[in-house]
Amino acid sequence: MNAPIGIFDSGVGGLTVAKAIRDLLPNEDVIYFGDTAHLPYGEKSPEAIRNYSLGIANFLVKSGAKAIVIACNSASSVATEILRETFEPQVPVINVIDPVIRAIESSVQDIGIIGTRATIGSGVYQDKIAKQHPNVHIHALATPLLVPVIEEGLEKSEIAIKTAEHYLGLPEMQKIDALIPGCTHYPLLTELFNKILGDGTTLMDTPNIVAGHVKDVLTTSNLLSTQESEGSSSFYVSDYTPTFERIARHFFRKEIQLSELDIWK
Amino acid sequence: MNAPIGIFDSGVGGLTVAKAIRDLLPNEDVIYFGDTAHLPYGEKSPEAIRNYSLGIANFLVKSGAKAIVIACNSASSVATEILRETFEPQVPVINVIDPVIRAIESSVQDIGIIGTRATIGSGVYQDKIAKQHPNVHIHALATPLLVPVIEEGLEKSEIAIKTAEHYLGLPEMQKIDALIPGCTHYPLLTELFNKILGDGTTLMDTPNIVAGHVKDVLTTSNLLSTQESEGSSSFYVSDYTPTFERIARHFFRKEIQLSELDIWK
Repeated sequence: MNAPIGIFDSGVGGLTVAKAIRDLLPNEDVIYFGDTAHLPYGEKSPEAIRNYSLGIANFLVKSGAKAIVIACNSASSVATEILRETFEPQVPVINVIDPVIRAIESSVQDIGIIGTRATIGSGVYQDKIAKQHPNVHIHALATPLLVPVIEEGLEKSEIAIKTAEHYLGLPEMQKIDALIPGCTHYPLLTELFNKILGDGTTLMDTPNIVAGHVKDVLTTSNLLSTQESEGSSSFYVSDYTPTFERIARHFFRKEIQLSELDIWK
Repeated sequence: MNAPIGIFDSGVGGLTVAKAIRDLLPNEDVIYFGDTAHLPYGEKSPEAIRNYSLGIANFLVKSGAKAIVIACNSASSVATEILRETFEPQVPVINVIDPVIRAIESSVQDIGIIGTRATIGSGVYQDKIAKQHPNVHIHALATPLLVPVIEEGLEKSEIAIKTAEHYLGLPEMQKIDALIPGCTHYPLLTELFNKILGDGTTLMDTPNIVAGHVKDVLTTSNLLSTQESEGSSSFYVSDYTPTFERIARHFFRKEIQLSELDIWK
């Protein structure tokens, strides 16, 4: 079915998921909405996040989206249900948390989970892991410096190295055999994380896990694109930011089409 | 007049101002309110910040405050007027921006101003400097990594050094002969800033400038304490945070009295 996949986040983080989807499914069209006017979602109430998510999902569906990917941890944890009630079964809704938790291998005994203060404080990963993998020990750590380092464009700097070494060097991170980067920004630090973690610890590849799940859902629902040419990507933001443009260009290389759009007007 | 000085901020930053006031006026009692439930103010609308500020100022005045110090850049820029209309002349209102801008020396030709993205984006320092010091060149730079570094307790770390070197090493910061640390958190980095800036650039001592202005206002209004014993300090937060307790203890050394209080209930 030659309709776009709709993806949204409060900002740039979801671009890591959009990139993985484009890499795995190059013939699919993608519409991305970054709600930069309202970021960070982590500071907002669940009601506010649900309202923003509904507004964006409505925009994506009206723009023809055949599936919706919630590429944001805060929205995934509080808005998945309302979006499913509203749009499924016609338009499947996929979030960034559930496929990752399902992908934890049975050999894992100690799992680390890092994220923003809001994500770790909400306990969403901890609760879901405890239910689905009751024998796994959970080591959760809020790592609030990582998002601003990435948003400042400093992910290759000495600051990023020192910051990642600081967090992953803390005692609670020493026992883990797998790590969930529980924030869609963190894949920009994958190389650095792998270098610090070493061979004994698996860094879960969240964007590719989510992209694989998107492919499965589209296949099962008979919604895969049949076009043979490369798919197109459109990017919308509710408030233009240079960081968004920089990271979108970095990921999608060729000239991207970025439009500012206030869907709440 | 043996009534307390009321000081508020969205969080810990204003403690640098409270400390300077206690050091300069050791016989004064101080009540501090950190609105940690609503931080960061930088992300909130001006209307919301005005409402929070009014609520807190009402609490402080009901608790006997003889003067109010707005120890927060965001609240200083949008709530000073409404607090002055509401509480002056009985209770003088002092903010953290105006005394600092008045203190810029006439020898300064190029001034740097650093702050959060919200403060720098609002243009409040730039506008006020342009009006009062029209011949001074302004070099404004948002430095969004510094607050999270301090709130993570990493102000003495290699991360803090690399981050400060990054920002103060940028080309626009090379010409300045004075720097305003335009965020109440930054005095925790004073030593580091001075080391990087070197002898040619004056780091403006914002907490002591504000404390000096508080002393002037209390003297003029005949409100100085006449008690000979050391003043007391009380700390209230709208949401308990370990960071607040850590920094309050670090500054005020002896056992501090910290109470959680939801004044909006």
